[in-house]
Amino acid sequence: MPKPHAPDKPAPHAARRSEKSRRAIYDAALALVAEVGYPRTTIEGIAARAGVGKQTIYRWWSSKADVLLEAFLDLSDQASREAGAQDAYVIPDTGDLAADLKAVLRLTVDQLKDPRFEAPSRALAAEGVVNEELGRTFMTKLLEPSLQLYVDRVRAAQEAGQVRRDIDPRIALELWVSPLAQRWLQYTGPISYEYTDTLVDYALHGIAAR
Amino acid sequence: MPKPHAPDKPAPHAARRSEKSRRAIYDAALALVAEVGYPRTTIEGIAARAGVGKQTIYRWWSSKADVLLEAFLDLSDQASREAGAQDAYVIPDTGDLAADLKAVLRLTVDQLKDPRFEAPSRALAAEGVVNEELGRTFMTKLLEPSLQLYVDRVRAAQEAGQVRRDIDPRIALELWVSPLAQRWLQYTGPISYEYTDTLVDYALHGIAAR
Repeated sequence: MPKPHAPDKPAPHAARRSEKSRRAIYDAALALVAEVGYPRTTIEGIAARAGVGKQTIYRWWSSKADVLLEAFLDLSDQASREAGAQDAYVIPDTGDLAADLKAVLRLTVDQLKDPRFEAPSRALAAEGVVNEELGRTFMTKLLEPSLQLYVDRVRAAQEAGQVRRDIDPRIALELWVSPLAQRWLQYTGPISYEYTDTLVDYALHGIAAR
Repeated sequence: MPKPHAPDKPAPHAARRSEKSRRAIYDAALALVAEVGYPRTTIEGIAARAGVGKQTIYRWWSSKADVLLEAFLDLSDQASREAGAQDAYVIPDTGDLAADLKAVLRLTVDQLKDPRFEAPSRALAAEGVVNEELGRTFMTKLLEPSLQLYVDRVRAAQEAGQVRRDIDPRIALELWVSPLAQRWLQYTGPISYEYTDTLVDYALHGIAAR
């Protein structure tokens, strides 16, 4: 994914101006997609709303999909920092898998209920359902990297002897991630900490009688 | 949901004509929503494509959402009949919960891959993500009744002593339904019988080491 870049050796005021434009473009892109949907969001519209020239956007990104993907990554980073996470790209490993998964899922519940996140995320997710190319890009660049954090955490638990060796971590994580995602996407039920805690318990111990 | 009704004591040819119109309207509604999306699907467009008057549609349904919901119910009924299910509204109870769940999920995999089903279902699901009222209607009338079949089957397994009594069946079913739904909606991974079989095994027995 292209990262915005300033000209070589920028003067300090130029770097500040670039950072301000970049932030304005992200905000405009997220607001616009939430209001009019992905198909009617355009580079021109983002530029007008951000108060920058269209060429400023094209200098940094090649398409509206790229602008939006990066705006979402930035939004997630912000949310993680505000939640006090030291590093957004690690799931804690205290040695207690259930507790670690429950803690991360509670942060996800907070994020799904955050209005800054909700409307633009829904607009992008909805488009991904009917636009396979965008859906796959969205999956590869936004969803899959965060799912891989769970893969790593489940592998560590396998090495610690807490999860069975024959379990595929990439499928296992769907037992807690997907129910939460479906309740959010399709209104199939309420979202709460109690709910995500329950998912983790069921996923770890199964529902069958012993 | 309103069901189409013929006038009192219709002559046989009038009933046949009604049935033919009803089928043409369902087909037109599903084709149109797949092609242009939910927001641009109109009663006028459905009527024109079905070759019936707009008033024929308004006599039987009050909105395009109603037409589409019924068209989807009819499509599911057809798919179930073709798959040889005796009754689309029952999950088998052979006494082997894992086998019964795997069998039903394999039929769902087939349905998700059926092109007649895929495009209109994606169009409706995408709209439900950004249109909460439609999303909730879609959930209540289409999704929830099929999820309740799993609730009944899990309850029967609880009574048979195969599933723990403290398990909430309405949450338990999400361990196999939601991962499949998310892979379909968000392209988070391939869909196969092997995959759904694995979900059932993980959900029943958990991933934790014993």
